[in-house]
Amino acid sequence: MVRVELLCFGTELLVNKVNSNLLIIADRLETVGFSLSRVTTVGDEKKEIEHSFREAIKRSDIVLTCGGLGPTFDDLTRECLSKVLKRPLQYKREIFEQIQEQFKTARAKMPAENKRQAYILKDAIPILNKCGTAPGQIISAGKKCIVLLPGPARELLPMLDGAVLDYFKKNFSVGYRLKVILHIFGKPESEIDEKIEPVVRKNWNLKDLKVIFEILAHKHIIDVCVFTQGRTKELMDAHLFKIKLALKKVLGDDVYGENEETLESVVGFLLNRRGETLSVAESCTGGLLANKITDVPGSSNYFKEGVVVYSNESKIRLLDVKKKTLDRFGAVSKEISEEMARGILKRSKSDWAISITGIAGPTGGTAAKPVGTVFFTLANKKQLFSAHRYFTGNRNEIKEKSALFALDLLRRQF
Amino acid sequence: MVRVELLCFGTELLVNKVNSNLLIIADRLETVGFSLSRVTTVGDEKKEIEHSFREAIKRSDIVLTCGGLGPTFDDLTRECLSKVLKRPLQYKREIFEQIQEQFKTARAKMPAENKRQAYILKDAIPILNKCGTAPGQIISAGKKCIVLLPGPARELLPMLDGAVLDYFKKNFSVGYRLKVILHIFGKPESEIDEKIEPVVRKNWNLKDLKVIFEILAHKHIIDVCVFTQGRTKELMDAHLFKIKLALKKVLGDDVYGENEETLESVVGFLLNRRGETLSVAESCTGGLLANKITDVPGSSNYFKEGVVVYSNESKIRLLDVKKKTLDRFGAVSKEISEEMARGILKRSKSDWAISITGIAGPTGGTAAKPVGTVFFTLANKKQLFSAHRYFTGNRNEIKEKSALFALDLLRRQF
Repeated sequence: MVRVELLCFGTELLVNKVNSNLLIIADRLETVGFSLSRVTTVGDEKKEIEHSFREAIKRSDIVLTCGGLGPTFDDLTRECLSKVLKRPLQYKREIFEQIQEQFKTARAKMPAENKRQAYILKDAIPILNKCGTAPGQIISAGKKCIVLLPGPARELLPMLDGAVLDYFKKNFSVGYRLKVILHIFGKPESEIDEKIEPVVRKNWNLKDLKVIFEILAHKHIIDVCVFTQGRTKELMDAHLFKIKLALKKVLGDDVYGENEETLESVVGFLLNRRGETLSVAESCTGGLLANKITDVPGSSNYFKEGVVVYSNESKIRLLDVKKKTLDRFGAVSKEISEEMARGILKRSKSDWAISITGIAGPTGGTAAKPVGTVFFTLANKKQLFSAHRYFTGNRNEIKEKSALFALDLLRRQF
Repeated sequence: MVRVELLCFGTELLVNKVNSNLLIIADRLETVGFSLSRVTTVGDEKKEIEHSFREAIKRSDIVLTCGGLGPTFDDLTRECLSKVLKRPLQYKREIFEQIQEQFKTARAKMPAENKRQAYILKDAIPILNKCGTAPGQIISAGKKCIVLLPGPARELLPMLDGAVLDYFKKNFSVGYRLKVILHIFGKPESEIDEKIEPVVRKNWNLKDLKVIFEILAHKHIIDVCVFTQGRTKELMDAHLFKIKLALKKVLGDDVYGENEETLESVVGFLLNRRGETLSVAESCTGGLLANKITDVPGSSNYFKEGVVVYSNESKIRLLDVKKKTLDRFGAVSKEISEEMARGILKRSKSDWAISITGIAGPTGGTAAKPVGTVFFTLANKKQLFSAHRYFTGNRNEIKEKSALFALDLLRRQF
């Protein structure tokens, strides 16, 4: 197995800048069968950079770096690697001309500092930068390979997709890496773990194929991931498909989607296929459910309207909720959620209606109905189905869980 | 100087999950004068975790970790540190009871696996988790301090803000690091940069106080940040206040808030203070505006209702939009946005109304009204104010920019 690690250089990455390169690079490496074993982020300090280079080169076959190739005083990647490998930097005229060209295109004068960027390590393969001034470099050191890339994604990506992945394919014998991800809402991680255990046991590292299972718990959603690594794409595809079916069998209806699918996109797909429409009436989720539904391109095909009824007066006027019911059961009750669903279904003339009423907090809870109490009703012309849940978490989390629960409720009807 | 580094455990962080803890932790450490020297991310593999522990403990005074404290087979942080420090894990009844309590509150059955989480290293200080099942731990090893925290931010943060920072303040001699952040919506970074330049020039690194200015461009919002570091809190407070006033003077009404404030919280504060109410009518934002407004605790004091009118029929029935106007000007027009605002204002009997209608894409654009065209109307009983914008970006970005623009429009009236 080829061990690959990534070094990210830049003080801003330790202070206030999200490192968006990491997952982009991981994603690209996957296409040639590599996965990242480690990512290290250090600031623009000589000692730290040199130290991290020494460790990484010792540990790994390929060391990728991003950042620190700019023209200013705090761009130290070139110099540090030169010191660590005891290999001098050499001026390359072709690179200098390419940098000059960049400035000409931008109709700007080249500052003197940029000449620094025309130096690469002795015997390094330069990678010209079409979107910026910092060239990349591929360096061989014994059996190790070190690749220096600039920090900005728009400069880094063309180099990675072109020269770098080509170099890896030619010089490292790599196979394919395929994956499938199944999404589940509203189940505890431990329950999923238990259910998939027999499938994992049966398929973990087969004789001719490496298979890795993982359970990733996001905030409210659990992902079951299966990765395979190997040399015969057809075999891997077929096997992954078999594993997917086995997982779906043990997980049943709890799986709401695969890979890029979201609860709202799945609901949209199903409504579209049936040619049916949906409207929603929200209280505690305050528009989040409608917002999720309308995040899906083309949702205007099946989504007619949403109302956010944050006051009793709005519930009565917009949904024909009865004052008597409000007085008797309170706005957060099964009875009100049913009247809300009936009201929006009838008024919007939709095929489906969802209503949500609850207490998102932080205040408003009582002993009988604590913060997190939420009532749901799903209705169509023939029937009406209600549910309630006690969610934990802060205001945003209760809103999020409620909206996802409502979508999951609808999905399970189809 | 105290050297602090962070280890992040979780294969998902090397594959498909953005590490949002890094900057949150860096931000909190700043409040006690610490900065991160290095961040290492490794997957859920024993050897990698142990190796990273050994290196980090050798290099740094404080090693913080997040992730890998869950109940499943791939949560290995506890076991790996126990092996590295050669210190056994011990069962703690108080933690077990706390975990049981969590499940009771959620009215769920505790799976057997969760018992693993009640084990902590010998002599570790446990940090109870009020938002999840994984307890944190503070471990002393010679002069080194190792802090284990869970992965989810909502569980990690209360621990960090409470027990962990308290422990650091007590056990490490640290100074203060104060900051103030001003938020601006809808202005280019270069314009802000130019405006604040005189203030920066005058206040950068004073004789007795280190002052750092930074402009952070988020997706749609610009933050102007000022940091000071030192030992006399009163002096720092006073100086930061002076700088803040100077910045506000040059930036004027463009600054919508400070620090934790959001556009929706500022709008809420202003409405509350005036004792006025708001309702909204949304088309292309699909509920996002109502959702933002209701993210603010206590928003039911001033927010009456929202309608998401995704069909012409809904616009007519819910907002008295005229069919004639729709036919003549189209649903995305100044005329319709005005009728929508008038309709929601009148029907909801609110003091203020906002309407939004536009094209969020990816389809639906025309030469005259490309994707990103959005019309806004702000109305109260006395007057009506309309605006339109051409936003760039994908569907989600256009929704986001539109909702923020609408809030900013209202804020500027007060």
